[in-house]
Amino acid sequence: MSALPNPPRVVNVGLDLFADALAQLRVPVVGVDWRPPAGGDATLAALLARLETRRAEIDAANQRAFDILVNGEPVLLDCRPAREAMELPDRLVLHSGPPIAWERVAPPVRAAILCAIRYEGWAANDDAAAELIVRGDVRLEPCHHRRAVGPMAGVLTASMPVFVVENRAHGNRAHVTINEGLGKVLRYGANDASVIARLTWLAQEAGPLFGAALRASQGIELRPLMAQALRMGDEMHQRNVGASSLFVRALMPHVARVADRHHAAARLAEFLAGHDQFFLNLAMAAGKSMVDPAGGVPGSTLVTTMARNGTDFGIRVSHFGERWFVAPVEMPVGLYFPGYGPDDANPDMGDSAIVETIGLGGGAMAASPAVARFLGAGGVAEALATTDAMREICHAEHPHFRIASLDERGAPAGIDVLRVVETGIAPIINTGIASKVAGVGQVGAGVVRAPLGCFTAALEALAG
Amino acid sequence: MSALPNPPRVVNVGLDLFADALAQLRVPVVGVDWRPPAGGDATLAALLARLETRRAEIDAANQRAFDILVNGEPVLLDCRPAREAMELPDRLVLHSGPPIAWERVAPPVRAAILCAIRYEGWAANDDAAAELIVRGDVRLEPCHHRRAVGPMAGVLTASMPVFVVENRAHGNRAHVTINEGLGKVLRYGANDASVIARLTWLAQEAGPLFGAALRASQGIELRPLMAQALRMGDEMHQRNVGASSLFVRALMPHVARVADRHHAAARLAEFLAGHDQFFLNLAMAAGKSMVDPAGGVPGSTLVTTMARNGTDFGIRVSHFGERWFVAPVEMPVGLYFPGYGPDDANPDMGDSAIVETIGLGGGAMAASPAVARFLGAGGVAEALATTDAMREICHAEHPHFRIASLDERGAPAGIDVLRVVETGIAPIINTGIASKVAGVGQVGAGVVRAPLGCFTAALEALAG
Repeated sequence: MSALPNPPRVVNVGLDLFADALAQLRVPVVGVDWRPPAGGDATLAALLARLETRRAEIDAANQRAFDILVNGEPVLLDCRPAREAMELPDRLVLHSGPPIAWERVAPPVRAAILCAIRYEGWAANDDAAAELIVRGDVRLEPCHHRRAVGPMAGVLTASMPVFVVENRAHGNRAHVTINEGLGKVLRYGANDASVIARLTWLAQEAGPLFGAALRASQGIELRPLMAQALRMGDEMHQRNVGASSLFVRALMPHVARVADRHHAAARLAEFLAGHDQFFLNLAMAAGKSMVDPAGGVPGSTLVTTMARNGTDFGIRVSHFGERWFVAPVEMPVGLYFPGYGPDDANPDMGDSAIVETIGLGGGAMAASPAVARFLGAGGVAEALATTDAMREICHAEHPHFRIASLDERGAPAGIDVLRVVETGIAPIINTGIASKVAGVGQVGAGVVRAPLGCFTAALEALAG
Repeated sequence: MSALPNPPRVVNVGLDLFADALAQLRVPVVGVDWRPPAGGDATLAALLARLETRRAEIDAANQRAFDILVNGEPVLLDCRPAREAMELPDRLVLHSGPPIAWERVAPPVRAAILCAIRYEGWAANDDAAAELIVRGDVRLEPCHHRRAVGPMAGVLTASMPVFVVENRAHGNRAHVTINEGLGKVLRYGANDASVIARLTWLAQEAGPLFGAALRASQGIELRPLMAQALRMGDEMHQRNVGASSLFVRALMPHVARVADRHHAAARLAEFLAGHDQFFLNLAMAAGKSMVDPAGGVPGSTLVTTMARNGTDFGIRVSHFGERWFVAPVEMPVGLYFPGYGPDDANPDMGDSAIVETIGLGGGAMAASPAVARFLGAGGVAEALATTDAMREICHAEHPHFRIASLDERGAPAGIDVLRVVETGIAPIINTGIASKVAGVGQVGAGVVRAPLGCFTAALEALAG
């Protein structure tokens, strides 16, 4: 007989040990997953406490940055060589992620940079190309410094065609290369003749046709298209089949109208028909156009950039504008193509985490249970849990990007440095995986965490 | 103090009265929603009991019919005038649903039939057209009797282009008109000059271009495309945006290749770009091609056709092959366009319920929470409940049409007459709503139940 007049009802706060013991005795327990702020790190907790005194000011600044971030109106206007669209000079190679010295560049990124120099005709072979970089005759710069983003290696040079996205709410523009498709492609560090042949086709036939069609279209609005695709199972990082299909459907009338050689239109349509991930680059440029105006809001602790170059992971925080906070990249976990495994993978790379920065990708996993198979067991429960975790570190729910399976709740958006450090939850990013060996290309796809070091560094600067 | 040593635990079977009283006293109750078979109808219960003695034979037959139904391999091969593709003679008008005498035809269907006669040039005006029918100089016949299906009024005549779908697993073919789009369209009973102008464009430009492109494609496989669309939020009756977009992406390379006039290709691409429901007709033809070989399996109680002509609802049951079981159609409930309401609606019509017959539409609502807004409150819970209800009356889960939000469970498929009568759950069908007034067109969209009378009639025949 119990000594209590009624059976006990227990709320367990923090560690599960006590709860587990009671559960074994069949006593009902409600668990509260409380953890000390910043995982109990006294220094970080003190910094968080210091910022807590400025809470109202920070909240207001974050709301301003959030409103800019989520209400951008990206419109796809054109496709032109980077030389024209971005005034990109010769002898400059853009890459993904934060700035990096040549000596520290990871092998697949290095392979892509050298291949691009050959493609441009600045050097005849990789040795000569590397020599140009070492001598300073070809310079490296992040895409993000030139109003651009690049997937994986993110390599972009003057003669490559770029899509031009304008954020009509603010008038700023962003640029991105045409996604090359799967297989042996530059962005994964492949560098043979087939890679250059495809780049040539993109520059000489596909790019000009995209450009003419887009100019004829008066612009294609991307935000409604992305909102629609999110209702079609795309999180728009690992899965873009809905967005790619909607985009092709919107574009093809204009391609058909402007194409003076119907075989060119047929080749373009064929390329698009076989390419479910085509839209990724457009989602990235849309994201870049949406986050750039959200940078530089004084007092805002929201993340406006997450980007990786295969060696370092960098974030930028609204309050600090264009300043980078950098830490070593993590290794993705995921599923590998036959014949490859974790030992073959290069650490995380690419500007594509811009997608997570605007509330899609990992944070929108609940919309995309098919993508959750990269998360161990995979499935609906894992997908929901991922979105729940991201909600804990985000400012609010996106007013336009809504998730049908959550009864139209918005995807969590506006990653907050303070919440990341306080909870210890690092943003989760869906990603492709490149071989660590130059020239091989993609070996898998999976998920990766942003390193907490970027966020604690930003916190120290904010509280300093 | 309780007289019992432990608090009571109650399982309540059947009516909720006792459970409700206990719940008010805060006694935990588990409810079992038991109802007497066939709603307590002694005659029907006796028929069910008689068939129960043949259970093993019926189960085996149903498994055979189910395997045929779900494993069809519909491939879209061509688009040609019905005169060529179906050998449809002149002076014959096909319509949706079971056979019906002219006097009983509902006003919107009547309007569409007369408009088609004018379109064909068999009569100069509606009065003359009606006179042809009354005199027997133009005959009426169901689409289903001619290896075809038609949405809403389902009107089909010799010069209209039809898509040709072949079920490669069985070699049979099915046909359907090109979906005209929204607005003033023949299938909803609109009948003015704009309707005829669009039919003329479909016959003279769009149809031949579809046909040439499809012949160049060597056929587009529809089942994998439909399975993919189901993962994109389409249930393929009320929502086809995913399937339509995937189809356009697959088709456009062939259109671009065969188009000798690029303005024609541009007009076709434009028509498709603005038409989210385009794929519905293709899903219907795919469905028709899949169900036809499942008809005529001796002993099978599975439904192979559900179709409505605006007056009667008819089903066909595998065991009985082409025999119809008919009852009056129900009135849909749903959402109406501004200015219209339930008083403006014609009762249920169209062969489109073929979609529900193959496991999509209402039964796949869990894949398509956006469509559940037609169900009163709407949302994820209603969508799941609808699929759960259909599962109770279906033979099994579809091996190819899987629902991502249910962790890849198959959509319920193979509606079983015995289960429908036993549970009293009438199949739910997603549908458009036509005005009851000739010439108006669509006034809304919603859901409707198949009338139980068809199923009890089939049960009587099966047990007789």
